[in-house]
Amino acid sequence: MEPKQTDVNILLFENFTALDVFGPVEVLGSIDGYNLRYRSRAGGIVTNGQHIRIETEPTDGSGRGGILLVPGGWGTRALVGDEGFLSLLKEAADGADFCLSVCTGSALLAKCGALDGKKAATNRRAFDWVASQSGSVLWQKDARFVHDGKFWSSAGVSAGIDMALAFVAEQFGTERAAEIAERMEYRWSDI
Amino acid sequence: MEPKQTDVNILLFENFTALDVFGPVEVLGSIDGYNLRYRSRAGGIVTNGQHIRIETEPTDGSGRGGILLVPGGWGTRALVGDEGFLSLLKEAADGADFCLSVCTGSALLAKCGALDGKKAATNRRAFDWVASQSGSVLWQKDARFVHDGKFWSSAGVSAGIDMALAFVAEQFGTERAAEIAERMEYRWSDI
Repeated sequence: MEPKQTDVNILLFENFTALDVFGPVEVLGSIDGYNLRYRSRAGGIVTNGQHIRIETEPTDGSGRGGILLVPGGWGTRALVGDEGFLSLLKEAADGADFCLSVCTGSALLAKCGALDGKKAATNRRAFDWVASQSGSVLWQKDARFVHDGKFWSSAGVSAGIDMALAFVAEQFGTERAAEIAERMEYRWSDI
Repeated sequence: MEPKQTDVNILLFENFTALDVFGPVEVLGSIDGYNLRYRSRAGGIVTNGQHIRIETEPTDGSGRGGILLVPGGWGTRALVGDEGFLSLLKEAADGADFCLSVCTGSALLAKCGALDGKKAATNRRAFDWVASQSGSVLWQKDARFVHDGKFWSSAGVSAGIDMALAFVAEQFGTERAAEIAERMEYRWSDI
């Protein structure tokens, strides 16, 4: 039987952190039927301080159902003041079946209101700045990752790998997640 | 004082594994003066099974000095039979000050002869296939990473992060590496 097709919409922006994306991508990309789609507000090439130049599709018309993945990075500092971006993000988060964020990506979801009343984790070093984006989020300062309903969020950078493995474990069972961790030779401590 | 400028030449090819690249990139990109350069044989867009589409510079004329980073991935299966690629890789490896490989990337370095007489690590699941590429390499089956002179190599995928941290520790001290691991919120067990 053909596995159910699910878009994983990865929302990139200038100065995103690449490992926030490619940790979870390595995990989620192992699932048959998960289609990885790199998107940005307007589409085209997105770049960052690590000099990656990656092609993206525009977000227009996307974000219905599927999984939304929001990385962090220095670019979030500008985006928390960008009303156009925040309104697009809110729509994408509302429309997604699951919404995963890594590191300071949760600052963006908090600022647009998507995390109101929800538990969320974020980068530890940037905690005060992230938490200041919204007083309506139940911030979990010491969590490596947390989920609350359809919202999953992790601490900084590499913690996104643990969150993605836990998400797969919840969706497909611990055995499937452990198998992926083994293939990645990742020292997963949550099994 | 301006830090010494060092090119980190990342050699991409069709069907490379993204985390093999962006794990080490997160570590090496933290070093002032390390310039990350994504390259491929002919330049242009390189893609993989994770649907990443990344822009690259051609390798021509590059690879003198600096650091060469060779990821693994399914694409290595075709490239071990590609004489043109192997000869370019041998030249780049010979010319580099340091040569780092992740996962099945060491199959390519082995096949081109760059690892003759050297200790090397590789992906554990693909070990037999990788080892079959050269009988002149001192393969370290159980190593998470190993270095021998200027050659550093790691086991599969996520082990590249540990190798990159160990490389930074050797070059700049354990404290610098530990600081990077902390910023990445990476559970580094080798300090």
